[in-house]
Amino acid sequence: MKAQVVFGIDVGGTTVKCGLFTAEGKLLDTWEIPTRTENQGSRILPDVAESVQAKIRERGIQPDQILGLGIGVPGPVNQKGEISGAVNLHWGFKDVAGEMREMLGMKVRAGNDANVAALGEMWAGGGKGASSLVMVTLGTGVGGGVIVDGKIVAGAHGAAGEIGHAAMEPEETEHCNCGNQGCLEQMASATGLVRLARRYLEKSEKDTLLRRGKLSAKAVFDAYAAGDAAAAEIVEEFAGYLGRAMGIIACVTDPERFVIGGGVSKAGQPLLDVLEKYYRRYAFPACKDTPLVLAELGNEAGIYGAARMALD
Amino acid sequence: MKAQVVFGIDVGGTTVKCGLFTAEGKLLDTWEIPTRTENQGSRILPDVAESVQAKIRERGIQPDQILGLGIGVPGPVNQKGEISGAVNLHWGFKDVAGEMREMLGMKVRAGNDANVAALGEMWAGGGKGASSLVMVTLGTGVGGGVIVDGKIVAGAHGAAGEIGHAAMEPEETEHCNCGNQGCLEQMASATGLVRLARRYLEKSEKDTLLRRGKLSAKAVFDAYAAGDAAAAEIVEEFAGYLGRAMGIIACVTDPERFVIGGGVSKAGQPLLDVLEKYYRRYAFPACKDTPLVLAELGNEAGIYGAARMALD
Repeated sequence: MKAQVVFGIDVGGTTVKCGLFTAEGKLLDTWEIPTRTENQGSRILPDVAESVQAKIRERGIQPDQILGLGIGVPGPVNQKGEISGAVNLHWGFKDVAGEMREMLGMKVRAGNDANVAALGEMWAGGGKGASSLVMVTLGTGVGGGVIVDGKIVAGAHGAAGEIGHAAMEPEETEHCNCGNQGCLEQMASATGLVRLARRYLEKSEKDTLLRRGKLSAKAVFDAYAAGDAAAAEIVEEFAGYLGRAMGIIACVTDPERFVIGGGVSKAGQPLLDVLEKYYRRYAFPACKDTPLVLAELGNEAGIYGAARMALD
Repeated sequence: MKAQVVFGIDVGGTTVKCGLFTAEGKLLDTWEIPTRTENQGSRILPDVAESVQAKIRERGIQPDQILGLGIGVPGPVNQKGEISGAVNLHWGFKDVAGEMREMLGMKVRAGNDANVAALGEMWAGGGKGASSLVMVTLGTGVGGGVIVDGKIVAGAHGAAGEIGHAAMEPEETEHCNCGNQGCLEQMASATGLVRLARRYLEKSEKDTLLRRGKLSAKAVFDAYAAGDAAAAEIVEEFAGYLGRAMGIIACVTDPERFVIGGGVSKAGQPLLDVLEKYYRRYAFPACKDTPLVLAELGNEAGIYGAARMALD
């Protein structure tokens, strides 16, 4: 018999990333298809199924070689693989795992995309070798994924790992996209960092690189790396919120490692250093040495994690 | 064959509570022995083993009836059942599960006492029917236990569920017992509530029931129930910290239920009501309806949870 394989699918708002892996986590093939969101996104899952079947034929994969398929989707997914809704895909409730299983006749597991990415980093990225971790994804928002005993914690409402909505600032007057006030992602996402920078520049008279050129998370970290004093104050404020949030998270599941990913994590070691400073200040003594590492799989974390999820 | 039984042991600083249960969670017998902490607490586990053996002889329990023994201890316990140290028992590192197994020749599981109590409430108390919950124990300190998929989350350093040390107040200048500043238990334990009350009374001129008689958590909640305006402000501050912490915890593991126990929980429904107000303000929208319930097993949660742990 030929080597056993598993499919990993990551459904995004514009494209679906697909991967074919060995059971050991070797990526054999990747491809993409467009995400067709028209008609309440009713074509999305059938398109994925057809694409997977085409790949099976193309590579002459035999049914007994296939271990299963995992699929990550952008919304809250429960343990059964059902999603209560996905705004970006124009979906309401959908039994994602059930529909895919029906179409493909193979074992299927579904999960939230951020949680699945965390599992991917554990399998083949910054979390390799750990069996519990928390992934923190610093992008437009702040996403998260919580892994305990090698498994995704999905939560009673599919909301486990929604750490971007940790209520870190009770004094905040502006609203988060979720409707609450003072969520972590209002301070610690790329958007949040720019918001902190803008507020700082309005209040301060200080001369800074940040007054020249377009304000962005990258501009703030570039100025920080260049020794700009204003950028340093802004980055410290950002890291104070995020490091303290990570300290609180460590009191809940006490992970072996934090894996930091997303666009803002491109700032690299200076980001880890300042985060570690605040994490250590606020973490419970037993957890102060928990390592903070960078994510390694970038946009492929989702397909890795989806495939890994199907192996359980 | 006679009915199968399981032992649940809860080791405290002055007494060890012991329970004998059926596999279905019916409590057949309870007894206590003193905790002998002299000589680095070296007699504690042998005393427990002798007491269990005496109970086995007394009741004529046959070896094939015994499913095992679970034991909760006050300190950080890892997945293997080893404790890194327990100040109250005068212990350093100890392989609790291993030593008990050696002495008794039966299956043994060990866990942290607060985590084990959470499991007990899930088996037979306020968490019955749930497979994931977070228990919040409001005593001298704030303890916690996190259950996911029916199992205790122990954490990489045995520190999962140490929610009393969530860094909720970065402006705090006094130190917590753990050495950090601004921990949840500085505000939300019985001691913390009294501290908030004392601060309030120093700053305010307001006439209040709290200026007559001894200040205690019970006195604050009694005055609150009697409509005292100062007590209301103090309780709202307490609940603001605790409800917001619970909102953050829900972003991490999204439990089915929060179970509130410990001495302060004797305040009952008024406590739940004010906590719910702040929990709902700060929780992620998908989690706003997560029920908050009172613990039901009191001091027996530990023996129930220890027995339940031995059944896995």
